[in-house]
Amino acid sequence: MTLHHDGSSLFVPDQNPRLGSTVDVWLRSPLDVRTVHVRSIEDGEPRFTQAVAERRGAVLWWRAAVLVRNPVTRYRFLVDGDWYTVLGRFGHDVPDDTDFRLVAHPGPAPWTREAIVYQIFPDRFARSATAPATPDWAERCEWDDPVAGAGPLAARQWYGGDLDGIARRLDHIQDLGADTVYLTPVFPARSNHRYDAVAFDRVDPLLGGDRALRRLADALHTRGMRLVGDLTTNHTGVEHPWFDQPDLYYEGETWMGVPSLPKLDWHSARLRSRFVTAPDSIVKRWLRYLDGWRVDVANMTGRRGADDLTLEVSRLIAEAVRAARPDGLLVAEHAHGAGADLDAGGWQGTMNYAGFLRPLWTWLRREDLDLPDFLGVPGGVPRRDGTAMVRAMLAVMATMSWRSWNHSWNLLGSHDTARIATVAGSPQRLEVAAGLLATLPGVPMLFAGDEFGLTGANGEASRTPMPWRRDATVLPWYARLLSLRRKHPALRGGGLRFEHVSADAVAFWRETQDERLLVLARRAPGTPVPVAVPEATNLYGGATLAGSLPADGPTLQIWSCGP
Amino acid sequence: MTLHHDGSSLFVPDQNPRLGSTVDVWLRSPLDVRTVHVRSIEDGEPRFTQAVAERRGAVLWWRAAVLVRNPVTRYRFLVDGDWYTVLGRFGHDVPDDTDFRLVAHPGPAPWTREAIVYQIFPDRFARSATAPATPDWAERCEWDDPVAGAGPLAARQWYGGDLDGIARRLDHIQDLGADTVYLTPVFPARSNHRYDAVAFDRVDPLLGGDRALRRLADALHTRGMRLVGDLTTNHTGVEHPWFDQPDLYYEGETWMGVPSLPKLDWHSARLRSRFVTAPDSIVKRWLRYLDGWRVDVANMTGRRGADDLTLEVSRLIAEAVRAARPDGLLVAEHAHGAGADLDAGGWQGTMNYAGFLRPLWTWLRREDLDLPDFLGVPGGVPRRDGTAMVRAMLAVMATMSWRSWNHSWNLLGSHDTARIATVAGSPQRLEVAAGLLATLPGVPMLFAGDEFGLTGANGEASRTPMPWRRDATVLPWYARLLSLRRKHPALRGGGLRFEHVSADAVAFWRETQDERLLVLARRAPGTPVPVAVPEATNLYGGATLAGSLPADGPTLQIWSCGP
Repeated sequence: MTLHHDGSSLFVPDQNPRLGSTVDVWLRSPLDVRTVHVRSIEDGEPRFTQAVAERRGAVLWWRAAVLVRNPVTRYRFLVDGDWYTVLGRFGHDVPDDTDFRLVAHPGPAPWTREAIVYQIFPDRFARSATAPATPDWAERCEWDDPVAGAGPLAARQWYGGDLDGIARRLDHIQDLGADTVYLTPVFPARSNHRYDAVAFDRVDPLLGGDRALRRLADALHTRGMRLVGDLTTNHTGVEHPWFDQPDLYYEGETWMGVPSLPKLDWHSARLRSRFVTAPDSIVKRWLRYLDGWRVDVANMTGRRGADDLTLEVSRLIAEAVRAARPDGLLVAEHAHGAGADLDAGGWQGTMNYAGFLRPLWTWLRREDLDLPDFLGVPGGVPRRDGTAMVRAMLAVMATMSWRSWNHSWNLLGSHDTARIATVAGSPQRLEVAAGLLATLPGVPMLFAGDEFGLTGANGEASRTPMPWRRDATVLPWYARLLSLRRKHPALRGGGLRFEHVSADAVAFWRETQDERLLVLARRAPGTPVPVAVPEATNLYGGATLAGSLPADGPTLQIWSCGP
Repeated sequence: MTLHHDGSSLFVPDQNPRLGSTVDVWLRSPLDVRTVHVRSIEDGEPRFTQAVAERRGAVLWWRAAVLVRNPVTRYRFLVDGDWYTVLGRFGHDVPDDTDFRLVAHPGPAPWTREAIVYQIFPDRFARSATAPATPDWAERCEWDDPVAGAGPLAARQWYGGDLDGIARRLDHIQDLGADTVYLTPVFPARSNHRYDAVAFDRVDPLLGGDRALRRLADALHTRGMRLVGDLTTNHTGVEHPWFDQPDLYYEGETWMGVPSLPKLDWHSARLRSRFVTAPDSIVKRWLRYLDGWRVDVANMTGRRGADDLTLEVSRLIAEAVRAARPDGLLVAEHAHGAGADLDAGGWQGTMNYAGFLRPLWTWLRREDLDLPDFLGVPGGVPRRDGTAMVRAMLAVMATMSWRSWNHSWNLLGSHDTARIATVAGSPQRLEVAAGLLATLPGVPMLFAGDEFGLTGANGEASRTPMPWRRDATVLPWYARLLSLRRKHPALRGGGLRFEHVSADAVAFWRETQDERLLVLARRAPGTPVPVAVPEATNLYGGATLAGSLPADGPTLQIWSCGP
């Protein structure tokens, strides 16, 4: 039984500590550990507290009280002279960066961690009966027309999906196991992706307008489901009427040099008021219908040269969300280095490209995958082993609190990436990918169409209209895996402890006070790995756990091993 | 020839880039590397630039232009699909935290990196003829009386060292090789350490008053030497007249719970004005004499509960220093996790306990060392091998820019620690310690008395009055090593590349365009280590480099290996 601590309730019973309170933190250790101290930082200075041991069977549980002195209070363990941080045990000094963190900023609502998110690109999901006239920016397409996948046509192809179309397909979403719909932008724009908004004060009539959004929200809420919108805080379309008001924008500055996307200047008091703080601000008014926001290009929002207003803007938006909907969700798009922007009283989590999608792709990619880059990184998707995958995941995890990690959205793909079916290349590896999505900490986000095994080599090519008539061989896996996640609290909020990591196999525990689940993900067959578990019930995959992790693969297995 | 980059001028010719400028960065690689990109972050978004290779002998030099888009612009290399950061080469994704950094904040003056600092605790260095009456807080001591080393007496023992006493001993300091004197506080107080200031507007008459400070400064400046003061920004003594003005302090808050040291509240506009921003502020007025400040308890300054004004205060002070003395020095005391407070336009560096003293102590400690703690960490000083030492050093280095690392003060001990002679236990290991102080990046700071081999098991016990009559066997090592540092630019500003790291031996290169020095530090004898250097001249230690690093030890060797 290895040394272990993570920020889950098994080790930190108070998951939302108040500033100034004292909370217990626990460390599990083998019996031969002699001394444990907790080092926490108070007002910039390290303090040490001796932990007290309690024997439970073959392990020791060490407890120490930590003062939550600051909004983010870092702590680590000193175990017989070694340091223990998020990255494990070290026989040398390590900087504070990978310490565990207690966060006293207001905690997100419970549903935001329990959620299973289904991402919809509205133009491509489903059409209702009504078909408006083709707008001037668009090329009208039939549902079965191929998507362009690149070039100027990609943003102009208009398939006519709309919000009422979505509302008619809620059975599908719910049967799949999702309970939260996240819509990419619904405001009027001059493209099918609508990240070039020309207004924020109304829903695009092409999608059915404000009333359709309300109908969709009502239909979801009636089912106990949630609806999350997409907020572009970094820029607007150049035809947005605000663009006449130069105090709202940086002069000459655009998103990534694209002339049609001028960059907002968050120094502007008028921008802050209209967008965030006023009673009828953009952020607030739509929360009458929406349950929260995903923030587009959050990594760039407020940043420009010497300006870095990102944290300030994130806090403003978080306050506005809480004011309008106290249980509102607020998740940031930040595909690298999000840690520095989290745990700051703003974003509750990030879209976890860096700590989930990227490592997982490198492990489960088909051998002959040939993509030109890896989400912008030149040279394609490298093929890496399980050790590299887990290291990359933990390295990102160590940059943020357990809470932010668990409120981040894990994803296998999105409207900005290749499809997981293209990346994985085989149904078996696809099932392993879905299994990790359902069982690792973090909110699973499924991009609509993945459940049909849709393919696509990049974001634009992946925006295929939903093939409602296709045979669904992949769908039952997602449905079963996600239903296990809904059923087992340990898969949502349990601790995470790796049992085995090697080139082709990764096994980990998800544990609460009440249940212990063991998950095995294999990308290829191998040799059995001994594991000491007296009794286990298979919940997924069908293999028995007779003293060792089975050698067959690719496979995804889940066992329940009692409390 | 391994892959290498660091922030030195060999790899980044423009050491003080302007915001908005584009600078070249270089990477050295073996000939078999095929593709190199630089990834830099601009306004929160990664960008990739392909590097161009140029062959020079048996290595490739890759060059790419990086836009200094933000005050701190992070960059890393993508080398044939692997990442290369401050911590080396990785076959998996790693977070941005350990990226290299270009810093566009105003750069420190050149002398602040070239300096060799000599720390003086004024009460214990040297007495002039004049002997004032014993103050009421003090116990008068003769120069040869033993120091208390602990308990209330430790802060009350008054040996009567003064500033004119220092001025008379400048030959000693200069002969040793130091060019900058750093004085712990000189303002009136009620203790011998004077960190409990009762005034900031005059020098303690016990030390000779303002005029003595001026005499000392003049004497130093006449010799081309510098003088650095000690600023307590976190707290004052409870008898400071400011303490009558409650708006300057936190109510009921003191340094580490010590009632006599009330904590300053940096929200106070009056405090900011008096201490920092006014034309005759504390920070500014003394820079008529002083060349800069070391800031006491900088890690806690401005931090308290939900307040974190540290970066803001550090920038205010930096601006004030620049206003009063454009080439002024500003170094922060921060013994752990300083990286987060550096490269922010405030402190130029830190006292490098975390990245130098602590790792070095673990490597060079005597086997039977028995200290109760390790600078506050319970359990004494662990004994670790060379690999652990170098890992710990690099881990801290990766939390800051090359510039901040090189402007931080390396030290073997201070008035707050045990003496290095006590820690190392043998003259040979002491010489190795002095050698690393003189040859690694970072400004060497020598605590007065170390050159006489003084001992002491903690900070208070180490404050022995200078034994001016003692035989000096250690002094010549420091003098020779520091003179090599003064003579060889590579030891001050060269790149740092490790050639060999093992349990008992560490060898590294310091390199500029013009010279290549190889340093070997051994804590014990071992086996020869092959090294491919055609021609080398020994500069220190006397050993020849005939195809391998010599096996004798403990030893410190320096070779010059041509350009």
